[in-house]
Amino acid sequence: MTKQEFREFISRGIVYLDGATGTRLEKKGMPVGVCPEKWVLDNPEVLLELQNEYIEAGSQIVYAPTFTANGIKLNEYGLGDKIKEINQGLVKLSKQAVQGKAYVAGNMTMTGAQLYPMGNMEVETLIQVYKEQAGYLAQAGADLIAIETMMSLAETRAAVLAVKEVCDLPIMASMSYNEDGRTLYGTDPITATVVLQSLGIDVIGINCSTGPDKMIPLIKQMKEYANVPILAKPNAGIPVLVDGKTKFMMESEEFGNYGKQLVEAGASILGGCCGTEPGHIEALKKATENMEVLPPLKKKKRALASERKTVTIEENGPFMIVGERINPTGKKKLQEELKNGRLDLVLTMAEEQENNGAHILDINMGMNGIDEKEMMLKVVREVSNNVQLPLCIDSSHVNIIEAALRIYPGRALINSISLEKEKFEKLIPIAKKYGAMFILLPLSDDGLPENVEEKKMIIHKILDRAIEIGIEKEDIIVDGLVATVGANSRAAIECFETIEYCKNTLGLATICGLSNISFGLPERSYVNSAFLSVAISKGLTMAIANPSQDLLMNIGLATDLLLNKEEADIRYINGVRA
Amino acid sequence: MTKQEFREFISRGIVYLDGATGTRLEKKGMPVGVCPEKWVLDNPEVLLELQNEYIEAGSQIVYAPTFTANGIKLNEYGLGDKIKEINQGLVKLSKQAVQGKAYVAGNMTMTGAQLYPMGNMEVETLIQVYKEQAGYLAQAGADLIAIETMMSLAETRAAVLAVKEVCDLPIMASMSYNEDGRTLYGTDPITATVVLQSLGIDVIGINCSTGPDKMIPLIKQMKEYANVPILAKPNAGIPVLVDGKTKFMMESEEFGNYGKQLVEAGASILGGCCGTEPGHIEALKKATENMEVLPPLKKKKRALASERKTVTIEENGPFMIVGERINPTGKKKLQEELKNGRLDLVLTMAEEQENNGAHILDINMGMNGIDEKEMMLKVVREVSNNVQLPLCIDSSHVNIIEAALRIYPGRALINSISLEKEKFEKLIPIAKKYGAMFILLPLSDDGLPENVEEKKMIIHKILDRAIEIGIEKEDIIVDGLVATVGANSRAAIECFETIEYCKNTLGLATICGLSNISFGLPERSYVNSAFLSVAISKGLTMAIANPSQDLLMNIGLATDLLLNKEEADIRYINGVRA
Ligand SMILES: [Zn+2]
Ligand SMILES: [Zn+2]
Ligand SMILES: [Zn+2]
Repeated sequence: MTKQEFREFISRGIVYLDGATGTRLEKKGMPVGVCPEKWVLDNPEVLLELQNEYIEAGSQIVYAPTFTANGIKLNEYGLGDKIKEINQGLVKLSKQAVQGKAYVAGNMTMTGAQLYPMGNMEVETLIQVYKEQAGYLAQAGADLIAIETMMSLAETRAAVLAVKEVCDLPIMASMSYNEDGRTLYGTDPITATVVLQSLGIDVIGINCSTGPDKMIPLIKQMKEYANVPILAKPNAGIPVLVDGKTKFMMESEEFGNYGKQLVEAGASILGGCCGTEPGHIEALKKATENMEVLPPLKKKKRALASERKTVTIEENGPFMIVGERINPTGKKKLQEELKNGRLDLVLTMAEEQENNGAHILDINMGMNGIDEKEMMLKVVREVSNNVQLPLCIDSSHVNIIEAALRIYPGRALINSISLEKEKFEKLIPIAKKYGAMFILLPLSDDGLPENVEEKKMIIHKILDRAIEIGIEKEDIIVDGLVATVGANSRAAIECFETIEYCKNTLGLATICGLSNISFGLPERSYVNSAFLSVAISKGLTMAIANPSQDLLMNIGLATDLLLNKEEADIRYINGVRA
Repeated sequence: MTKQEFREFISRGIVYLDGATGTRLEKKGMPVGVCPEKWVLDNPEVLLELQNEYIEAGSQIVYAPTFTANGIKLNEYGLGDKIKEINQGLVKLSKQAVQGKAYVAGNMTMTGAQLYPMGNMEVETLIQVYKEQAGYLAQAGADLIAIETMMSLAETRAAVLAVKEVCDLPIMASMSYNEDGRTLYGTDPITATVVLQSLGIDVIGINCSTGPDKMIPLIKQMKEYANVPILAKPNAGIPVLVDGKTKFMMESEEFGNYGKQLVEAGASILGGCCGTEPGHIEALKKATENMEVLPPLKKKKRALASERKTVTIEENGPFMIVGERINPTGKKKLQEELKNGRLDLVLTMAEEQENNGAHILDINMGMNGIDEKEMMLKVVREVSNNVQLPLCIDSSHVNIIEAALRIYPGRALINSISLEKEKFEKLIPIAKKYGAMFILLPLSDDGLPENVEEKKMIIHKILDRAIEIGIEKEDIIVDGLVATVGANSRAAIECFETIEYCKNTLGLATICGLSNISFGLPERSYVNSAFLSVAISKGLTMAIANPSQDLLMNIGLATDLLLNKEEADIRYINGVRA
């Protein structure tokens, strides 16, 4: 099935998935401790029966039982040489079961091996594991891929990238949330939505862990951010231990009734996870089949995310700061530490900037005497583990930016894409592939634009190309390109004009550096601060700056307050520094 | 002659005055030491001959020889009881001399008595002396009044007010400048122009003291500000002492040739002062009669002045500060000093504010336990004598404002005129009479406007009435009326909107207070400063503030710099405080 066909299919109304496979197989005689994939292949009639029951109950998509058929898991069962055979065999078996009456999703989940720093696995290793499995699933004729029961956003992201690299099949990805509303690894459903849909998946969802009741508020949260349909595949309630055995007690009718609330909350792809049976799917269908589906959000939210936090960039929202400190340029001590492979200062800077009110952290490792790429990956990993803020990947090398985006477990900002040939041609597709936002830097191979008109022309060229390949306006932040007022007396005015043009005419967010403007002048902080407040009043979205500058931060907070931005009074009162 | 007739007459081209009277009378036999006015009346044939010679030479206006016929001077000659007789007699004699072939100007000059603090005379006393003389001149049929050879701007202002209070005759006022370009009392020609033309005189000029050559640069300066024609009436060169006698040596031809340069510099009303004879006037006419006259400046400059300094308020010029400190509200120590009649602190505040970069000083004496009017007059006098800055007269009492304007030797700013009945009806004509600029405060008897539309409506009502009685847009500065952002979250936005409306739609200058906005908030200076920089970017002209606030002043300077205002870079570099 093509993505286009799938999108049309899921846009027509509520789509019903199947119910549990694992708990059903156990009921139908699968012993505890065996490799489920192998057992199914050895007992094909069980799956045929099981999936037929779901189709009769109303399932339109069934999951091939390839859940843990990845290289790492199968190796644990001594089946490392049977990956192809198992995945292909199970997809084919499911295709045989459904007889064209339903779609078959190739099913994937976590490998059990953990990424650094919880374990030792590299992201790239995991991507390769998933690519192997996904490749076989696609080859065998899976109609789509369902990545589910994910508890790590980083692993989910690796799985999605892997699928995208081996096929063009539609992708549904669902994560499992504890009762506190976060995954085991700490990701909240909004962050999962922002990060995963930016990668181009077709359905975002929640499955397993809780019953349908606990999913309702999470679906509501996701609905505020989701531009794709939302999947809900709850367990039949919270498991309880009865006579030493895990039981799921929620009856089908109650389950079905919760289905209504899930649809009201925004879900439109419904199924069951552990403990659910054909009766649950039937009840779900009966309760919801005539309901109207809430359409996905049309306008994309501007949002960046780390693995555990989403930072939303509202059109008229709080003025934001990209912390600029993690950059060795002109910092002797930091350079020395990096040369010695120490990141203490980097981590201190990261934490200080977070505490001082930065919303995003810029990471730049451009210096002589180190391997910039290796250092960038190391810093991205360590900073991600130590602070909650999303990162801005700042390098003049395309390959370094791509490498960082590949491992970054959130949604990053690229700093930056200009009209310089190398960047323009390579980085726009990279931004698209990794779902990153990017800073549009309006300069070209000819250098800085000579005037505002030329600046606007460059902005349009980059914007047009980005839109052409499916990037949206909300993914782009234009750098106002601040010159030095000492060298060009119209520097600030031209930047203000660019900001107003981007905001009012193009609907694009903007960013500015805050130190260039005052270069060579005495008492520069006053010039920077005055620039900031006028720029905010013109619509500037964010600035790259050092958030430890009290004057700048206070003026920024005060300007938001004066412009009557939402809750700016509270932010000012809580945030102003004496 | 009505003002209207006179204005038409002088707008037709170059107008020729007469030459010297005093030096000519001496040549024709008047002894040294007599009262000239008395001698002329006793020897009428001398004046008839003298003025006929001038008319033959081309004079279109002759000055009746009433130069020192004021009560103070005549008293010195024991002729205090002959004021009426002398002034009326001399005007009638001149009228007889000219036989309708020229206009006769009643002539007035300084009394020799000095105003406080050089002497003990009160401004009001002087006004009464001049009113007496001017009244007789007008009654006797003078076609206009020529106030000349003035060295004190305060005395000139008193003379002009006096003439205006007794008749509607056209007024020409000319001052005498030393070679350093200032009058004996320190007034420069731009300041004289600004202050005197604001009082509604018809011609502004220079006479006596120097020859025509030295007047050229001064005329050029005046031309930049003068909305009325300019008069030049030079001596026949600098006087030299020959055989113990003062002689004026410039020959008529040279004098006439300088006339060309005076016309090129902007003068259009030409005559001669000490040492000039009918030949000089003839030469002047011959050299200039076919020249084109430069028209007066159409658009009025926004300018305030003290007695010795003009402060111009340019449309896109430097952001300006009205120093707010001289106001006892909330200042215990100042209140105590004022109660004890001491002005030490007031004068310290005035000097400090001047040194800290204020452009105008607000004077408010509103407090209990003192005579506000008496204190206002005292402070206006003392501050005027101690600092160069123009004053802003700030009182809620109409009579106090008028009393201050009556004695103030410059062009003041009234703080303020609202739509409150008492202020609206009485203060607009007072502003017009005394040539003051005023702050238009958009509130009414119903209190503060409820929204921006109501604010605009009030602005229009006050503006329309002001324009109706001959005040110009350039005389008005609108108070943006800053509310407290803590009480009205749109306070700043509404003020910004008012500023933009005044600047872009109405072409009016604006002013704001800078402390209201942040009332009740912590670290208020940041809110005030952010407000300031955005307001300046919207076009705010000036703020009432305490110029000792480094943050505010630095941000103001920086904002001007960023907006690329003329010479703002130099002002920033010289003015920013660490
Ligand atoms: Zn489950
Ligand atoms: Zn604007
Ligand atoms: Zn003279």
